[in-house]
Amino acid sequence: MQLQLSTWHEVQDYLKTSTGVVIPIGSTEQHGPNGLVGTDALTAEIIGRALGEKIGCLVAPTISVGMAVHHMDFTGSMTYRPSTLIAVIFDYVQSLARHGFTRIMFVNGHGGNIATTNAAFYEIYNHRQSDPGKGNQPVKCLLANWWEGPETRKLCADLYPTGHGSHATPSEVAVTWAAYPDRVKYMEMEPEIAPTGRFTDAADYRRRFPDGRIGSNPNLAKIEDGKRLIEASVADLTTTYREFLAA
Amino acid sequence: MQLQLSTWHEVQDYLKTSTGVVIPIGSTEQHGPNGLVGTDALTAEIIGRALGEKIGCLVAPTISVGMAVHHMDFTGSMTYRPSTLIAVIFDYVQSLARHGFTRIMFVNGHGGNIATTNAAFYEIYNHRQSDPGKGNQPVKCLLANWWEGPETRKLCADLYPTGHGSHATPSEVAVTWAAYPDRVKYMEMEPEIAPTGRFTDAADYRRRFPDGRIGSNPNLAKIEDGKRLIEASVADLTTTYREFLAA
Amino acid sequence: MQLQLSTWHEVQDYLKTSTGVVIPIGSTEQHGPNGLVGTDALTAEIIGRALGEKIGCLVAPTISVGMAVHHMDFTGSMTYRPSTLIAVIFDYVQSLARHGFTRIMFVNGHGGNIATTNAAFYEIYNHRQSDPGKGNQPVKCLLANWWEGPETRKLCADLYPTGHGSHATPSEVAVTWAAYPDRVKYMEMEPEIAPTGRFTDAADYRRRFPDGRIGSNPNLAKIEDGKRLIEASVADLTTTYREFLAA
Amino acid sequence: MQLQLSTWHEVQDYLKTSTGVVIPIGSTEQHGPNGLVGTDALTAEIIGRALGEKIGCLVAPTISVGMAVHHMDFTGSMTYRPSTLIAVIFDYVQSLARHGFTRIMFVNGHGGNIATTNAAFYEIYNHRQSDPGKGNQPVKCLLANWWEGPETRKLCADLYPTGHGSHATPSEVAVTWAAYPDRVKYMEMEPEIAPTGRFTDAADYRRRFPDGRIGSNPNLAKIEDGKRLIEASVADLTTTYREFLAA
Amino acid sequence: MQLQLSTWHEVQDYLKTSTGVVIPIGSTEQHGPNGLVGTDALTAEIIGRALGEKIGCLVAPTISVGMAVHHMDFTGSMTYRPSTLIAVIFDYVQSLARHGFTRIMFVNGHGGNIATTNAAFYEIYNHRQSDPGKGNQPVKCLLANWWEGPETRKLCADLYPTGHGSHATPSEVAVTWAAYPDRVKYMEMEPEIAPTGRFTDAADYRRRFPDGRIGSNPNLAKIEDGKRLIEASVADLTTTYREFLAA
Amino acid sequence: MQLQLSTWHEVQDYLKTSTGVVIPIGSTEQHGPNGLVGTDALTAEIIGRALGEKIGCLVAPTISVGMAVHHMDFTGSMTYRPSTLIAVIFDYVQSLARHGFTRIMFVNGHGGNIATTNAAFYEIYNHRQSDPGKGNQPVKCLLANWWEGPETRKLCADLYPTGHGSHATPSEVAVTWAAYPDRVKYMEMEPEIAPTGRFTDAADYRRRFPDGRIGSNPNLAKIEDGKRLIEASVADLTTTYREFLAA
Repeated sequence: MQLQLSTWHEVQDYLKTSTGVVIPIGSTEQHGPNGLVGTDALTAEIIGRALGEKIGCLVAPTISVGMAVHHMDFTGSMTYRPSTLIAVIFDYVQSLARHGFTRIMFVNGHGGNIATTNAAFYEIYNHRQSDPGKGNQPVKCLLANWWEGPETRKLCADLYPTGHGSHATPSEVAVTWAAYPDRVKYMEMEPEIAPTGRFTDAADYRRRFPDGRIGSNPNLAKIEDGKRLIEASVADLTTTYREFLAA
Repeated sequence: MQLQLSTWHEVQDYLKTSTGVVIPIGSTEQHGPNGLVGTDALTAEIIGRALGEKIGCLVAPTISVGMAVHHMDFTGSMTYRPSTLIAVIFDYVQSLARHGFTRIMFVNGHGGNIATTNAAFYEIYNHRQSDPGKGNQPVKCLLANWWEGPETRKLCADLYPTGHGSHATPSEVAVTWAAYPDRVKYMEMEPEIAPTGRFTDAADYRRRFPDGRIGSNPNLAKIEDGKRLIEASVADLTTTYREFLAA
Repeated sequence: MQLQLSTWHEVQDYLKTSTGVVIPIGSTEQHGPNGLVGTDALTAEIIGRALGEKIGCLVAPTISVGMAVHHMDFTGSMTYRPSTLIAVIFDYVQSLARHGFTRIMFVNGHGGNIATTNAAFYEIYNHRQSDPGKGNQPVKCLLANWWEGPETRKLCADLYPTGHGSHATPSEVAVTWAAYPDRVKYMEMEPEIAPTGRFTDAADYRRRFPDGRIGSNPNLAKIEDGKRLIEASVADLTTTYREFLAA
Repeated sequence: MQLQLSTWHEVQDYLKTSTGVVIPIGSTEQHGPNGLVGTDALTAEIIGRALGEKIGCLVAPTISVGMAVHHMDFTGSMTYRPSTLIAVIFDYVQSLARHGFTRIMFVNGHGGNIATTNAAFYEIYNHRQSDPGKGNQPVKCLLANWWEGPETRKLCADLYPTGHGSHATPSEVAVTWAAYPDRVKYMEMEPEIAPTGRFTDAADYRRRFPDGRIGSNPNLAKIEDGKRLIEASVADLTTTYREFLAA
Repeated sequence: MQLQLSTWHEVQDYLKTSTGVVIPIGSTEQHGPNGLVGTDALTAEIIGRALGEKIGCLVAPTISVGMAVHHMDFTGSMTYRPSTLIAVIFDYVQSLARHGFTRIMFVNGHGGNIATTNAAFYEIYNHRQSDPGKGNQPVKCLLANWWEGPETRKLCADLYPTGHGSHATPSEVAVTWAAYPDRVKYMEMEPEIAPTGRFTDAADYRRRFPDGRIGSNPNLAKIEDGKRLIEASVADLTTTYREFLAA
Repeated sequence: MQLQLSTWHEVQDYLKTSTGVVIPIGSTEQHGPNGLVGTDALTAEIIGRALGEKIGCLVAPTISVGMAVHHMDFTGSMTYRPSTLIAVIFDYVQSLARHGFTRIMFVNGHGGNIATTNAAFYEIYNHRQSDPGKGNQPVKCLLANWWEGPETRKLCADLYPTGHGSHATPSEVAVTWAAYPDRVKYMEMEPEIAPTGRFTDAADYRRRFPDGRIGSNPNLAKIEDGKRLIEASVADLTTTYREFLAA
C-alpha cells in the first residue's frame, strides 16, 4: 500500500490495524560506467514497494537524494549535506508520528546514508523525549539496509563469489535492471574488477576510483539475479519489519 | 531523459549540449475523499517526465514532500517545515550547479510550495553572489506551476466551468488517474462542490474544509481529461522552458 | 497607537478590547535615481501608522530591512537572507502571541518580502500546532501589501496610466514625498520610462535595469498624489484588517 | 545623513569620502509604569540620528527589537532570541560591507543587547577571516552604548545623584520625552525608588521587580534633562566614532 | 605532546615535521552501578594521551560530552544533540585545518558517537570541497575506536570470555581504574551479567536495562587488565595513525 | 566531586542534598611565547575542581574550547563559532536541568567567552520559559570569572603592580605552572611588557600584538603565586556559589 496512491481515508483505516510504516531512502549518484545514477534510490524503492505489496504495510514516498558528498566529483551526483538530511528525516518522522505511526522503518539503498540517518534518529528521540507533552508519544525508528539480511547476503555470495565489491555492485545493478530492463547495458571496463580501498572527500574518491566503481564488476549483473535478489531481500525485510513491530 | 535512469557518462554528454534541468516538486497531503495523498507529487512527476520525454531535457528526482503544514490535521499528510524545504532546494541546486547546470526549472504541483520555493531561490542567489569564487558561477532558478500556462488554463476552464476549485481539483485528480487508472474512484460528497475561503493553520483548515476539498467537485474528473491536461501542460512548459534557457 | 510610544500598562489595557496588531514591514534598497533607499520601509510605516491613528489599532515597530538579495549590486541596499527574515518574523509573532495577540497583520511595502513572509507564517504555524500546550494558542497572520486594495489600485491606475511600472514606482515615491517633502527631487532619466522584465540575482538585476527602476517613471510622482494614496490605502487596509479580526 | 532618506547615488558619493556608518540598536520592552515600551530603540535612534546630523555620518535603519528575553512577562515586550539577533546583525554588517563600508558602529540603547551583539561581531569576523576571498575585506565593528561616554556619565550623576538605577532610568526616559514631549507622564510609584538586584529569566525578573523598574525613579526625568543628555551623548559618541574611524 | 600543555611556538615547530593530530572524543553518561559517568571520555583521553606520549603526535583537548541521547534517563548523563556535536567537530577540524593540519584522527571512547562523527566528517568535506579557495586545502578525518584494533580485541576476548557485553564493559571500566585506582569499586549486581538487546530512546533504554549495563559484568574488571588494554590499544592505534598519515 | 569520576548512583545521591553544579569553561589559544595554549581551560579546570574538593559541589567536565576567533592567526589556537558555543552551553544546561539541577555556575577562564556565554543563557531562558511544560522547570545560570573576586583581584594587584596586562598574564600563567610545574619556562621577550590596546579580528590582533601577549610580562609568574591565586580564587568562588545557591 503506497501512501502516495492512497486516499487520506484509506490511511486512517490502515492506522486502525497497524502503526508501522516503511520509507525507502536512497541516493542519486554515479554508479560506475553502466550503473544508473539513481541506483540506490531505485533499489530502495523497488524493494520497499515490493515489501508493501507482499505484507500490506504502508510505504511512504522515497527519499531519492541522500548523503553523497564523496561522489560529487562525478557528473550527475547529488547530495544533501548531512545537516539537511537530518532535517529531512526529522520532518518525515514528525509528520508520520503526528498521525499515530510509532514504528518507522527506513529501507535503505545507500551505505553513505547510514551514519547520518542514525544521527537523525537521535535528533528525533532527543526532541520528543525532551518534551513529552501532547503529541510527543514515543516512536521507534529503524534503518534496514536491503542487502544485509541473511538470505540476501547468502544469495549475493552465491551469485558473485568474486567481483561483488562495495560500490556499483552487480547485485544493486541487477536489482535496477530487473525493474528497468531497457537500461541493461554491458560495457568493457578496465580493470575488470575495480580497485578497493578507503576514501575521504570527493577529490580523494575520484582519484582512487576513476570510473566510480569500488571493488566491483557490474558486468556480472543479470536481470534474473535482480529478481531473485528482490525476492530474497523482501523475505529478509519481512522478518525485520515484523520483529520491529513487535519490539 | 531521467537523471535516475542515466549513467554518469550520459549526464556528462548531456551537459555538452545543454545546461538546463527540470525538477518535479510536489507534496504528500490529503486530496479530499477520492484524491490521492500523493496527487501533487504525482502530477509534477507525470508532467515533468512527459516534458523530458518530449523535448529531451534532463529530469531530476522528484521532491515528493512539500510545504503542507496546513494539511497536517488530515491523516497521511506529510510536510517539510519551510526551513527544511529551503535546505532541500538549496542542496538540489548546489549539487546540480557544481556540475555546470545553469538553468534549473522546478515543475511544481502544489500551491503551498510557491512561497517557500521562491524564498529558497534567494537563499541560493545570496549564497552564490556573496562569494563569487571558483564554482559559484551564476545559476537561474524558475518555478513553473504545471497548471498555469495558457493552454492548460483554457482547457481547465473548458472542462470544468464550475466545480474546479483550488484543492482536490478535478484537473489534478484527472492527471493522476490518467497515469494510475486503477485508482479511479467516484464517491458521493456532501456538498457536491466544496466550500471556498481562506485558511491559516491546520486546525483552521480542517474546521473550514472538513473533507479536505476547497471549492472543488473531483467527481468531474475523467481519465481522458487527464491525458489532455498532461498534453496541454507539456506544451505550455515547453515554451516556458525554452524561453528560460534563452534568458 | 504605536507600541513604541505606549507604556506596558497601556498595552495591557489595549488587549482587553482587541487582540489585533499591525506590523509594518519594508526594505532598505535602491529605488532608482531619485527614490529613497528606505522607500519600502517608509511607505509601510507611514501607512501602517496612519491606519493605527485612524482606527486605533496597535502598531508594532517597523521591520526596516527585508528580503532584497536581488538589489545588492546597488550601493546602499541591505538584505536579510530569507532564513534570517523567517527568524525575525517568527520572533515578532512569538513575542506578541505570548501576550495574547491572535491577529497579526503585516502591512508590507516590498514585493520581495511576500514569498519569505508567507514561508515564515507556516514556520510559525508548524511550531505552534506541533506543540499545542500552554502558551501555544492559535494565531492568525496576514500579509497585506499597501498597494493591493481596490481603492489604491484604482487611484494608481488613474494617476499613472503609463509609467507606473513595478519598482521605483511613482506611487511609492509619492507616498514617501508626502511624508518627507524635503526629499522631493526631479531628475532627468534615460529612458524616461524604465524597461520591464524578469530577473534572478543581483548581477542579473543590475545588468537589465542599470539605474534600478523597473518599468517606471518616478518623475510622475507628486506630493499631492502621495497624500491621496495614503488615504486610499488606509481605507483599503481598514476593511482588510476588520475582516481579518472577524475571521 | 539617514540611509533611508538617501538615494543610492548619494550613498555612492558618501563612500568616496568615508567608509563609516552608524546603526542604532535598541529594544522593545516594558520600561516601568510611565516609560515607553520603545524607550531603548527610541534613545538609540534619537541619539544616533543626532550624531548623523552633527557630523554627517551615514545612519542606517534602527534595529528596534533586541534581546529582551527577561522582559517577556511584561505585556508588550518583544524579543529576538540571541540566535536571531546574531543573524540580524550578521546580515546588517554583511550587507554594508559588500558596498565597501569598513567601520560599523552600533549606537546601543539596551544593556541586554551587549552580550549578543559582541557575540555577533565574532560570528562575522570568523566568517570573513575564514574565507578571505573577494568581497571579504576586513571590517571593524564597535558597540557604543549611548550612556557610557564621560560627559554623559557625568551629566547623569549630576542630574540624578539618587534614583537613577539601571532600568527605566530617568535619563533614558528624559531622552525619549525630549523627542516625544506629548508622552510625558508623571505617576505615583511604590516604592518611589525601585529595588535593585540581579535576575535571570522573565519570571524571576517579574517577581523581583513587579512594576518593571530596577533601582530607578523615572519621575525625576525632565524634558530639559533629555535635551542635555542627547547633546552630551552626541559629543561623547563623536569622539568614539572619530577614534574608531582612525583605528 | 598535548596541545593544551604546549606553547604556540611549539605547535608551530611541530607542524614542520607532521600535519597529523589526535583528538580524544568520549561521552559523559551512566556506566552502570560501579562504572564512572566519565568512562567514555576518560578512556579516550587516557589512551589518546598515551599514544601521544609514545609516538610524539599532538593531542588536542578531549571532547568530553558526546551523543548520549539514549542515556538521558539515568541521572548524571549529558548529551549533545547530534546537530550540536556536528558543529563541535566541524569547529575543531576547521580550527586545526586553518593552521595546516591535514590528518585528524579522533580516538573514540563511545559507540554512540560513531554515526554522528561520521556525519560531521561529511559536513566538513562538503564545506571544504564546495569552496576550494584559499585556506580550504583538503583534510582527512578518521574515527578510531580504542577497542577495535586486533590486539585490543584479542586481549578483550582473552580476559573476558563471557560477561564483556557492550555497555559498562569490564574492559572500559578496567581502563579507567588503571588511571584512577582510587575509584575501584566492586558491587553486587543482579543479574550478574546484564541482559542484551537493542534500544531506541532514553525511556526504552532505561526500561530494558534498568541499572544501565548491557550484556556486561563490570565486576570482572581489574586494574592490571586496564594497563594491558591501554598498551594494546596504543599499539593498535599506532599502526592506524601511521597508516592514516601515509594515506 | 567530579561528575566524570562519579557513578550515576552517586549523582543521584548528590541531588538529594543540592541542585547546584559547577562547569569549568575555558579556551584553547595562544598565550604568548611561554604561556600554554590550554591556559584558559586549565585555569578554569584547576580552580573549578579545587572548588569542588573544598566545598563538595559537583564539577562537570570542562568545556576546553571557547570563543577565540580573534586568536586564530596564532598556530595552535582553536575556536568555536559563537553559534556553536551557544549550542554547546545550551546542551550542557539542558542535560543537567533534565536531572533536576537548578543552579548552574560556569567557572570561566577566558574573557572572550563572556559575551557568548551570556547570550547562551538567554537562549536557554527563552527556550524554557516559552514552553513551561513538564521538564522545563526554571534554571538559573551564572558565569563567574576566576579572576574577578575581591581576594583574587587584590592578590593580583599585590603580586603584579606592573606587567599584569590582560592576555598571557602572569597570574594565569602562574596558576597553570602551579598545576604543571614541569611546564615552567622563562624566556626573553621584546618588549618586556607587551603593548596594550583594542582589537577586532584575528589579523588585527596579530598585527597589534605580534607575540600574542597584551600588556603583560608573563616572566613575572611564579609557581608559588599560582598556589596563592588558586586559593584566593577558590575562596572568592565559594562565596559566589553559596550566594547563587541561595538566590
